[in-house]
Amino acid sequence: MSETFKGKSTSRRAFLRGAAAAGAGALGAGAAKAATPDPLITETQPWARGFGDGVDVTPYGLPIRFEDDVVRRNVDWLTADTISSINFTPIHALEGTITPQGCAFERHHSGAIELAKEDYRLMINGLVETPLVFTYADLERFPRENHVYFCECAANTGMEWAGAQLNGAQFTHGMIHNMEYTGVSLRTILAEAGVKPEGKWVYVEGADASSNGRSIPMEKALDDVLVAFKANGEALRKEHGYPVRLVVPGWEGNMWVKWLRRIEVTDAAVQSREETSKYTDTLEDGTSRKWTWEMDAKSVVTSPSPQAPITHGQGPLVISGLAWSGRGAITRVDVSKDGGKTWETARLAKPGEKMALTRFYLDTTWDGKEMLLQSRAMDETGYVQPTKTQLREVRGLNSIYHNNCIQTWWVKPNGEAENVEVS
Amino acid sequence: MSETFKGKSTSRRAFLRGAAAAGAGALGAGAAKAATPDPLITETQPWARGFGDGVDVTPYGLPIRFEDDVVRRNVDWLTADTISSINFTPIHALEGTITPQGCAFERHHSGAIELAKEDYRLMINGLVETPLVFTYADLERFPRENHVYFCECAANTGMEWAGAQLNGAQFTHGMIHNMEYTGVSLRTILAEAGVKPEGKWVYVEGADASSNGRSIPMEKALDDVLVAFKANGEALRKEHGYPVRLVVPGWEGNMWVKWLRRIEVTDAAVQSREETSKYTDTLEDGTSRKWTWEMDAKSVVTSPSPQAPITHGQGPLVISGLAWSGRGAITRVDVSKDGGKTWETARLAKPGEKMALTRFYLDTTWDGKEMLLQSRAMDETGYVQPTKTQLREVRGLNSIYHNNCIQTWWVKPNGEAENVEVS
Repeated sequence: MSETFKGKSTSRRAFLRGAAAAGAGALGAGAAKAATPDPLITETQPWARGFGDGVDVTPYGLPIRFEDDVVRRNVDWLTADTISSINFTPIHALEGTITPQGCAFERHHSGAIELAKEDYRLMINGLVETPLVFTYADLERFPRENHVYFCECAANTGMEWAGAQLNGAQFTHGMIHNMEYTGVSLRTILAEAGVKPEGKWVYVEGADASSNGRSIPMEKALDDVLVAFKANGEALRKEHGYPVRLVVPGWEGNMWVKWLRRIEVTDAAVQSREETSKYTDTLEDGTSRKWTWEMDAKSVVTSPSPQAPITHGQGPLVISGLAWSGRGAITRVDVSKDGGKTWETARLAKPGEKMALTRFYLDTTWDGKEMLLQSRAMDETGYVQPTKTQLREVRGLNSIYHNNCIQTWWVKPNGEAENVEVS
Repeated sequence: MSETFKGKSTSRRAFLRGAAAAGAGALGAGAAKAATPDPLITETQPWARGFGDGVDVTPYGLPIRFEDDVVRRNVDWLTADTISSINFTPIHALEGTITPQGCAFERHHSGAIELAKEDYRLMINGLVETPLVFTYADLERFPRENHVYFCECAANTGMEWAGAQLNGAQFTHGMIHNMEYTGVSLRTILAEAGVKPEGKWVYVEGADASSNGRSIPMEKALDDVLVAFKANGEALRKEHGYPVRLVVPGWEGNMWVKWLRRIEVTDAAVQSREETSKYTDTLEDGTSRKWTWEMDAKSVVTSPSPQAPITHGQGPLVISGLAWSGRGAITRVDVSKDGGKTWETARLAKPGEKMALTRFYLDTTWDGKEMLLQSRAMDETGYVQPTKTQLREVRGLNSIYHNNCIQTWWVKPNGEAENVEVS
């Protein structure tokens, strides 16, 4: 850190002097006044004169009005109706790794339903010794776990397969969020009912009209799956499955069943609609990849990006981005400014954590010339994020899901950025 | 975990059978229906019949209406006016460790002001080689760090000194929150201006009318202090200092200056109002402890508690709580059910992290009899959280700030809890 900084000390100071001097009007004036601590300073700074809001104004605080653009957005052409659609997390405007629930993407197949805790029931049936029905209050009596995990829709970046080139990280990579979940291990719930020896899979479904049933192999069900009722400390938002959703670390978001209603232990996969006609990947030869549950290592530069252009001139520039892998922890991220010809190793804000977002930075100096910005993630299994070309070679152009290819932003001399393809 | 569970498997199943049978009406019916997967189930479950909300309904999602009570609360008798007051985080209703900004407590001395990024300026002056004025855009060009830290008001639990016994963890311990901050190291900012050899302290002040100036020794300023602009990924809330606040890990919240306006490097402490007549601790002999910056190791059981009574009968019970220390990581938490006569070691949800909240659990079985619930935290320095009696012996009864004594909840046979003192 401090080393990184020292290396740029001079240039940064030069640029800052520039900034302080350049700004005619507001900036110049503000700076001049500020330079001499002066009681009259308040005359130009109304906020320093009177009183602000009291503590009773906002029992539940909302973002300040200046941040009104940092919200989820959906695209009306993506699906037939918004009740069977998705919206996108404004990752271009967020920092760190935690996604606030308020702007965390949502995807559902028949709309976000309203289900009260008192009406909530979770049934465990099928190949178990004791079929059980849990109330919400019952779930609160089992040992709890807390884990930060990312949830990514299998369709994230899907429109890029054929080169749709949506103009912004929010739309190309925003079907993802990262929260601290509190819940009961599915292992605990299954042990309570007693899984019979022939039970090899669980079939999970939601209480909404679509039910969105999915099959999960018993190994995963007994490993790290959570029956979760809190996210970032609070109750789940209605649109995220209040009061209870399934958390399936590292696996595609569609399996994170919301409004979780039933867990049936079966001897084989159910082959439901959501795992046959949907959420499979059609290859060049017409055959389909099935059971593509894990989200492969992936990354994206969130700033600069089309929605977050460079608004300053050349000089010190912070390139910020996100990396993640459904197979474990991110171990390294490289950044390229020339479309993949040369790479620099980025700084990870913290060591990567299993199935959680990792924030990476490249603290650099911009020469004011155009850049072809890319990021390339590596995870603890040794997997390296592929280029779009490499991905197409093995998967063709018919796929929708599981596009984890390297993203390219063309940053122009004026600081604006565009979503482009480089071969 | 799974061991903890197995130990209680039988009793838990017994209690669950009980629950399924007991509930006349709603529960009984619900359970009965659920017991046989039946298409007609939808007739009693309207949410499973029609469509829910579309993705375009909530660009910024709010908590579901059933959670309307999970909000910050203030007490009108605490200060003369709510513009110079504080409200409390609903810790009794939260889980995990992250505090959502929306319900994170706020404290200010002249109200929460509205300050736009364009109007924001940060001056570094005093004993520096180059006095500088930064705009918000300038700050975004320095290397960023991300850290999860707790922020606790020095007055948290202060009303308990003389035994006010406020009835709820939100009011006794809710002047605390825990977020993932993104910002620039103060070390970086100071290096940019160049600290002169005689610069031994920094004096920090905010842009609000109170300015809330505080002195910080240079060792701390160069260690882990952050000039932060994001919390939990988003811009700071207005009431938390938008657009920029200081983050002083482990030290009393009053030093986490909001709407940060100026950082002056000085050769000595300024001895401002907020560090002399306020935020000092008057002892029995009339003298005052000064520079009591660090928040000592502390913990509290958040559930069960007066606002979170036990609503089920005897049997499996999850005791959940929070622990933290301004001197480093929490290493152990013990829980007592008999007012401190005997102790059981609690399970930490994750290994403690420096200056961050740690969630602890005691997965136990309640016999339905009254309990005197206490928790006792230990940190990596070997410090053990004291009893109220021990604290009074060394500090007397005149203190307001820095009350980190062990809290006692009297849980009655009917499950209700009360704030009590045990000697």
